[in-house]
Amino acid sequence: MTGLSAGHPSSADDGAFLDDFVTMSTFGATANQGVDRQAATAEDGQTREWFTGLLRANGFTVDIDPIGNIFGLLELVPGAPYVLLGSHLDSQPLAGRFDGAYGVLSAAHAAMRTRDQFAANGVTPTFNLAVVDWFNEEGCRFKPSMMGSGVFTGLLDLEKTLATTDAHGVTVAEALQAIDGVGTFTPPSIAAYSEIHIEQGRSMDDANTTIGMVSSTWSARKYEIVVRGEQSHSGATRMKDRRDAVLGAAKVIVAVNDLLAKFDEEAVHSSISELYVAPNSPVTVAREVRFLIDIRARESGLLAEAYAHLQDSIALIEAECRVSIDEIGASIWESGPFLESGIELTRSSAEALGYTNDRVLTLAGHDATNMKEIVPTIMLFVPSAAGGISHNEREFTSDADLVSGLNVFTHVVTRLALGELPESLNALEAAASR
Amino acid sequence: MTGLSAGHPSSADDGAFLDDFVTMSTFGATANQGVDRQAATAEDGQTREWFTGLLRANGFTVDIDPIGNIFGLLELVPGAPYVLLGSHLDSQPLAGRFDGAYGVLSAAHAAMRTRDQFAANGVTPTFNLAVVDWFNEEGCRFKPSMMGSGVFTGLLDLEKTLATTDAHGVTVAEALQAIDGVGTFTPPSIAAYSEIHIEQGRSMDDANTTIGMVSSTWSARKYEIVVRGEQSHSGATRMKDRRDAVLGAAKVIVAVNDLLAKFDEEAVHSSISELYVAPNSPVTVAREVRFLIDIRARESGLLAEAYAHLQDSIALIEAECRVSIDEIGASIWESGPFLESGIELTRSSAEALGYTNDRVLTLAGHDATNMKEIVPTIMLFVPSAAGGISHNEREFTSDADLVSGLNVFTHVVTRLALGELPESLNALEAAASR
Repeated sequence: MTGLSAGHPSSADDGAFLDDFVTMSTFGATANQGVDRQAATAEDGQTREWFTGLLRANGFTVDIDPIGNIFGLLELVPGAPYVLLGSHLDSQPLAGRFDGAYGVLSAAHAAMRTRDQFAANGVTPTFNLAVVDWFNEEGCRFKPSMMGSGVFTGLLDLEKTLATTDAHGVTVAEALQAIDGVGTFTPPSIAAYSEIHIEQGRSMDDANTTIGMVSSTWSARKYEIVVRGEQSHSGATRMKDRRDAVLGAAKVIVAVNDLLAKFDEEAVHSSISELYVAPNSPVTVAREVRFLIDIRARESGLLAEAYAHLQDSIALIEAECRVSIDEIGASIWESGPFLESGIELTRSSAEALGYTNDRVLTLAGHDATNMKEIVPTIMLFVPSAAGGISHNEREFTSDADLVSGLNVFTHVVTRLALGELPESLNALEAAASR
Repeated sequence: MTGLSAGHPSSADDGAFLDDFVTMSTFGATANQGVDRQAATAEDGQTREWFTGLLRANGFTVDIDPIGNIFGLLELVPGAPYVLLGSHLDSQPLAGRFDGAYGVLSAAHAAMRTRDQFAANGVTPTFNLAVVDWFNEEGCRFKPSMMGSGVFTGLLDLEKTLATTDAHGVTVAEALQAIDGVGTFTPPSIAAYSEIHIEQGRSMDDANTTIGMVSSTWSARKYEIVVRGEQSHSGATRMKDRRDAVLGAAKVIVAVNDLLAKFDEEAVHSSISELYVAPNSPVTVAREVRFLIDIRARESGLLAEAYAHLQDSIALIEAECRVSIDEIGASIWESGPFLESGIELTRSSAEALGYTNDRVLTLAGHDATNMKEIVPTIMLFVPSAAGGISHNEREFTSDADLVSGLNVFTHVVTRLALGELPESLNALEAAASR
């Protein structure tokens, strides 16, 4: 640290942040304190427009890249690489108001506070500051999730992604154009990335921890499955002649859940939450059901073991129900650690400000999970109350925890801008050699 | 019989019928010899328009009632009640071309042949003849099935039915108006109803029976079920905190199928073929799944027994998955016999024309199932080949069987028009007393 009062804003600043949070939560607001602003819907567009206005009013230069990511830049050191801060403004259907949005607003406020402190103290930092709203982190309307950061990091192809359609055949490109949400901006060189998010689980709340240093991601596998049977009359067809895709799918769903009993309690998570049935008529045995098996664990090895067991079950179900069950796509996110130096930097900031803190795993995917593959990345969590529920209107984090998180995040951002994360300095060399 | 050559048309007549059947099958034709003309879609409208033209060109007076049933009348005896013949032109998605459509076209041809024979022989029958295309027998786009005959027989309320919406919020009234398919016609007094249909099962084909006299319907129960859980994050939420509506629904689907093992083989049929999941997002545990349990048996007693077992399973699933499972609607069709005198009339017609015949049960519901509750009703089946498959493009009945069925049906229609079914004569007394 350089003797700045980083991370000690006035309480008036905290009030401004909470006021902005309340205002932001009015866009796509639902009846029960939640929000519904799926990617590139009108509600997402309204939130993005408001956020763009907030950035411009506070001195950011705002621009949009070809996949709809909104960047707000504060150039403090002409020509220097940027410390990028962000998260996502889109939400699941009938979702909570904290997921993603808290991180985007915190990014803007942390960048403003840091800029103002540098100005007040006459400090020239090592890096510039930028904030980002990543497009379509949630992946409910358009798959896959973490789309904006996926294209940014090169994990996803831009053209293919723009051509992806929602359930009504609307492409990402069309939906983005409809909310005036696409641009041609080429982002600058990034020295480091940081993101703050709600935990979306209960571990921190159960342990009364205010600040989580995300140390590792769980491994996740998502298998796209199609069960194929044959259409027939739901009343007249002899049972032993049926090839019922719904029955086959139901047995797979139960089998996936039954897998968990082979492992330690809570060691493996699994879910099937989206089903497409054809023809989905009440009197016609279904010819096809498509769904995604989402299975996660701390280590990839457990997932490989679980999937091997599932293959055995699937073979039995195919024979029993006279259906075919095929895997037609798979996404694999290997578990992986975050940078130890970033975890230590966050820990020392939390300690300096007097907040309880601990290392924490993320079971959910985040844009930071993509970003950590290409730049030094630090991720922070604040607790989720109400049993850690998320993707639900009941999702909740207290004002006190929101503000505590912002304070530590600001402290971290200031130190990042000052070049205190050793790995971020690589960007200086890269910039110098261009 | 009165010495008429009823049921012995020239082979040229058979050719005209088969030609019409080929033409009819072009409307809503699919790639694999099937049709897709769900109720009040453009394809249903095209088929209805063609059929209306066929009727008008052959001397029928055509009119439409308020629920979209198309009636074609041949008045042979001014003021007398009508023998009504019909079935339905709508289909399931990606369905066969025989289901319903065969019966509607047979009704028109049988009425024309009968009228022509009476005219050629100078016979004045007891009753007039009418044909009907019942609206929305299939119930896939708009529920419930057998909608047109349901309103006609007073089982369904007209206003409520017109207000019923499809999955996109379009009402029956709007959809019918869009195909110019609604009128104000009040049908005349009906003395008897007859319908010919494909079996949609394999029993007749397995036994080499050409003509089936439908003797009874199976009993059917349809339970509308909602499984309610709670939205949460599909990766982050602790497994023991989840209330997963998809998992609950899958367990119910498997439990319904498991019920069958408690009964003799093929004694009970069951199906779940339509599912609605909310929010149906890949990373949000579902809060709700809705579906219909369709369960059928020869006798209601078996269904009551099956449902009692299912209630036990449901209570266990509710506890195990922390979901609530509620029955929010039920349709019960009791099993019931068709008129013995009608079965005997059909048998003697089949015998007179030299066709193999047998009594047969219908496991599927039909408009005749509704009609038999209000007028003397005769139902005939012709065999379904290809293992009896139906609601599938592979549905098949040979030209020879189609023509054999039409010949026997014409014989039956002629005798009905002559008042040979004793129970039909009640309509004469009712007409006289008005």
